[in-house]
Amino acid sequence: MSFEQAYLNYTLKENYEDIKNIRYVEAVCDDKRMENSVAELRLAIEKMSGTKPEYTADDCGGENAGPVIARICLKINSQMDPEAYHVYAEGDKIMIEASDSAGILYGSFELIRQMQMEKELKTLDIKKKPDMPLRMLNHWDNMDGSIERGYAGDSFFFVNNEMVVDERIHTYARLLAAVGINGTVINNVNVKECATYLITERYWDKVRELSEVLGGYGIKLFLSLNYAAPVEMGENTSADPLDESVIKWWKDRMKKVYAAVPKLGGFLIKADSEGRPGPFTYNRTHADGANMLAEAVEPYGGTIIWRCFVYNCQQDWRDKKTDRARSGYDNFMGLDGTFRDNVILQIKNGPMDFQVREPIHPLFGGLEKTNQMLEVQIAQEYTGQQRHICYLIPMFKEVLAFRTYVRDTYDTVRDIVSGKTFHQRNCGMAAVSNMGNDDNWTGHDLAMANLYGFGRLAFEPDLSAQEIAAEWITVSYGRDELVKETIEYMLMESWPAYEKYNAPLGIGWMVNPSFHYGPNVDGYEYDRWGTYHRADHLGIGVDRSDKGTGYALLYHEPHASVYNNVDTCPDELLLFFHHVPYTWKLKSGKTVIQHIYDTHFEGVETVDEMVARFAKLEGKLPELVFKRVADRLAHQKMHSREWRDQINTYFYRKSGIADEKGRTIY
Amino acid sequence: MSFEQAYLNYTLKENYEDIKNIRYVEAVCDDKRMENSVAELRLAIEKMSGTKPEYTADDCGGENAGPVIARICLKINSQMDPEAYHVYAEGDKIMIEASDSAGILYGSFELIRQMQMEKELKTLDIKKKPDMPLRMLNHWDNMDGSIERGYAGDSFFFVNNEMVVDERIHTYARLLAAVGINGTVINNVNVKECATYLITERYWDKVRELSEVLGGYGIKLFLSLNYAAPVEMGENTSADPLDESVIKWWKDRMKKVYAAVPKLGGFLIKADSEGRPGPFTYNRTHADGANMLAEAVEPYGGTIIWRCFVYNCQQDWRDKKTDRARSGYDNFMGLDGTFRDNVILQIKNGPMDFQVREPIHPLFGGLEKTNQMLEVQIAQEYTGQQRHICYLIPMFKEVLAFRTYVRDTYDTVRDIVSGKTFHQRNCGMAAVSNMGNDDNWTGHDLAMANLYGFGRLAFEPDLSAQEIAAEWITVSYGRDELVKETIEYMLMESWPAYEKYNAPLGIGWMVNPSFHYGPNVDGYEYDRWGTYHRADHLGIGVDRSDKGTGYALLYHEPHASVYNNVDTCPDELLLFFHHVPYTWKLKSGKTVIQHIYDTHFEGVETVDEMVARFAKLEGKLPELVFKRVADRLAHQKMHSREWRDQINTYFYRKSGIADEKGRTIY
Repeated sequence: MSFEQAYLNYTLKENYEDIKNIRYVEAVCDDKRMENSVAELRLAIEKMSGTKPEYTADDCGGENAGPVIARICLKINSQMDPEAYHVYAEGDKIMIEASDSAGILYGSFELIRQMQMEKELKTLDIKKKPDMPLRMLNHWDNMDGSIERGYAGDSFFFVNNEMVVDERIHTYARLLAAVGINGTVINNVNVKECATYLITERYWDKVRELSEVLGGYGIKLFLSLNYAAPVEMGENTSADPLDESVIKWWKDRMKKVYAAVPKLGGFLIKADSEGRPGPFTYNRTHADGANMLAEAVEPYGGTIIWRCFVYNCQQDWRDKKTDRARSGYDNFMGLDGTFRDNVILQIKNGPMDFQVREPIHPLFGGLEKTNQMLEVQIAQEYTGQQRHICYLIPMFKEVLAFRTYVRDTYDTVRDIVSGKTFHQRNCGMAAVSNMGNDDNWTGHDLAMANLYGFGRLAFEPDLSAQEIAAEWITVSYGRDELVKETIEYMLMESWPAYEKYNAPLGIGWMVNPSFHYGPNVDGYEYDRWGTYHRADHLGIGVDRSDKGTGYALLYHEPHASVYNNVDTCPDELLLFFHHVPYTWKLKSGKTVIQHIYDTHFEGVETVDEMVARFAKLEGKLPELVFKRVADRLAHQKMHSREWRDQINTYFYRKSGIADEKGRTIY
Repeated sequence: MSFEQAYLNYTLKENYEDIKNIRYVEAVCDDKRMENSVAELRLAIEKMSGTKPEYTADDCGGENAGPVIARICLKINSQMDPEAYHVYAEGDKIMIEASDSAGILYGSFELIRQMQMEKELKTLDIKKKPDMPLRMLNHWDNMDGSIERGYAGDSFFFVNNEMVVDERIHTYARLLAAVGINGTVINNVNVKECATYLITERYWDKVRELSEVLGGYGIKLFLSLNYAAPVEMGENTSADPLDESVIKWWKDRMKKVYAAVPKLGGFLIKADSEGRPGPFTYNRTHADGANMLAEAVEPYGGTIIWRCFVYNCQQDWRDKKTDRARSGYDNFMGLDGTFRDNVILQIKNGPMDFQVREPIHPLFGGLEKTNQMLEVQIAQEYTGQQRHICYLIPMFKEVLAFRTYVRDTYDTVRDIVSGKTFHQRNCGMAAVSNMGNDDNWTGHDLAMANLYGFGRLAFEPDLSAQEIAAEWITVSYGRDELVKETIEYMLMESWPAYEKYNAPLGIGWMVNPSFHYGPNVDGYEYDRWGTYHRADHLGIGVDRSDKGTGYALLYHEPHASVYNNVDTCPDELLLFFHHVPYTWKLKSGKTVIQHIYDTHFEGVETVDEMVARFAKLEGKLPELVFKRVADRLAHQKMHSREWRDQINTYFYRKSGIADEKGRTIY
């Protein structure tokens, strides 16, 4: 497979005078990150200006040589915060200052981004500090090369149960560093077979090699861990976290792992979930399990990231009392304050599983004495699988802006995962990766905006979704106004459109089981996964109020009351919290059934508009990109109709209530 | 894998005096079938009596030596019909007479069966002639060892793209011969990859070896053929049946095949169906395609069996005019009389695809000048996948007894496929096999009754389903009355019970897509397969009357009028032919909705009764058999509830009409 450079595809800027006189990049290169910073700047400037600046091992001295920018100077300034940078013009040079080489790297990419956007350099003065301490990708790559929920080809980390560290991996590291991502978990959280052995001699030469390549770009390597490793490797009969021999096994193992791979960031664990083993097997708590591992990695500065995605996946659809939405809260809330400091709980944005619309996970605002990381998914598992456009940054913005009311101020999800609310450092945001070995990395070219956007957002959550979109379009495809306007429109309208033709009003799950692609209203209705809509001929929705499962009350006030009351519950979450008749009047003034019909027609109309507008970009985008996107848009156009017609028909047949506007429903 | 002997598991008959004095088996063994007959008799008598009779190469002369049966004599009598036999007592011997060694083989198995049932031998006088000329199995085995719609393990014909001819294959041949099956197609009708090359040098040593083993038991070997073989093998750019180079390619190929495998019976072809290539690719008819192949195999006495399962599998669910049920008729009826004499059209029992209840395929009674074979499926694809009990012989009896009214007399499906109606010899019945390499061959031990019953029924269609069940129980598990009563009850009630808790009133298809297992009312409702129930909040069913798709009129009178009129259409097919309100009164006096509720509760009650009765057989059946059946029954008990609850709940939620009896619906 070949691969493209995505937003690092530096192209010649014929009319951009500001970079034409840059002759030197000055720095004291005493580590790999400094070297990479210099190399990236020299490459970018060469490609954009036509002339490669020389490297000078100089500590940014030298006199001002004239009125134009001639030098880029990289300089450590130990007064600054970790990873922060200051990029500013000073005489004939651009200074990049940071307290560490990671900051220098981010500052270098900031400068390159400014150049890609053809900004005036003479007045440059940008001071930035990453908002969230941890900004991570989670890859669900299996060692056989497949990717769970991968929609962009196979793994580039694993082929035939072997690890790969090649040129593509270097580019991967550059792509991440350019948007400030500083951690990555390379293997699937469902750890099976060979992946169990990533912590053994069998693989650690390659693990170390990879950790060093990534480290050169400020990225810490993490692995997903098999909680039952001591048993599955045949070295212990138990995995009980309180068993002395198990504790010793992990300590011994970690000692060896860290001797071989000293830069390893730590481990991600999915335990007691969807068939994965965990402490419940031994009647222990998740704190017991996580703390045992945390103690084993603590001497080496390692971190244990523990997923809160724990629920009963053998539910009976007839049972209306059990509520999967409650499970994360119910399993972890009682453990608040019992986790070691090098444990982070990784919590999905919503209580279910990455649906197009969910309420915020109630553990945010619930947990007060536990390190927390927000998990989002840019792999578009439920949001069109990278065949539909679905720019997710607007959703993430809403999640981050959600006030939890756990405090009077600084109480948003963003504040919590940035460490402001509870004064934590082990916190941040992780995204399940949308990358694979497709030439363009993400299958759909426009899906790259989600990777780019995730990194930018975790670094600078104050950026708006639209600002990020505009920036990504420019660095990727240049400054053509029509390109920018069109793609910005497509991106910004894509999530709202997808929500419109998908399951209505926050109920979720109307997809084909297993695949999670394409409409199937009853697909999960009689299944064991706890994912029901409870539609009958009169109405639809799940009663999660105090008269139902009580889930609404897991939030702080005023949310609890707002969600609990069918009259105050926001429209977009109405069916998540309440069972209402189809004739129920929404705040919009429409009935639920008319809302279903209207939104499903509207969503398709937006897609049609996208298709029409995109067609005009022919000749303005690289031919291959245009063709790939046009092909996927044609599919989305067809498939959004399938969504519209199946969902409308299902509810028309069930309710018997006709569309007020008399449109075709089957 | 090991394997069991099923109904050839001869056991000692302590109290059965009639066989205790048999000392000789006399025959002139001049072919393999005679040898196998002698061997089978000697084995059976040894195992049942404790003493192995000697073989004597004698032409059944010798004098009457006394009052007890001491000899079995096998004798060719050229006056008889092919494959027919006469088994009768004469003095101290049992004579087995037939015009050919196949008849001798069948007569020998008849005698063994009589012994297994401990019948009086001194008065024996059984004269039988197989009713249908061709009595075939169709295996859907792939060369990688998997079996399409296989529910009893992997293939015993193919492992890793190689053919296997081993001890198990010999037992397979004996099992078939014992019930009169005289033909078998060993590979999947979806011919792909290596299977395309079964007609090449690569495989024909093994094909010949297998044809000889099977031939020794009167079984002709057939292969499924890839219609596009000349193209896929890279030897021709076309597969156009009227192209001279294609015609020549097939003639040359068949010449070579038959030189290598002279006993090959011929070929089965699925063309232009579900993605398989065919003559439609070249704008030719199925007659063009079939005749071209028939001409190529004609010099070698080969037969071409051509499947009529041709329909549009890319239908739009919104389209209510296209009717998949019509497709077989519409595609083939116009070709009647244009097929060569060594072509047989193989027609499924119903127009859809092996649902638990379908009307009879209208090509039966439609075609008058074409050889026809009835295809049934004992692989329980839609009837519980050999985890539920579903004894299908009662269904096949109904199919065979169906009067087509194409003539005034001898016009049933049985008459047609027996050759009586149109005086044909190339006709018969084929069953899609339910066998695999599980120890007990069919996964569910009771599923073996379907294999046994299929063979017995094709040979002697006058046998009742109950007679066949009783016979199979006795030859398999002996003469214990409780065993017989219990299993007979279970078998005879199993299809009715399955129909009750399945999709109601002939509508079919309420299964999980692809897998075809487990309830999913809307599973195929919005799909491309032409399989819809059209349920809304008022009613359900497909209008196939003259006001709908017109399918009902494809039958001869009086069927056409009976099916066409909602008032005369039989209840069990009502929703196949008509869309009616849930409040529609059936002939039973119940409304459609109450019928749905009642039958779904009743079906589960029958399963509960089976479970209760079967439990009493502990100790009376081989322990392993008891345990295996009990395990599957426990699953059926749970899973029939899933059917009941999902279907009842679906219709309750959709119609809003409560169960008159107030039972629990969710």
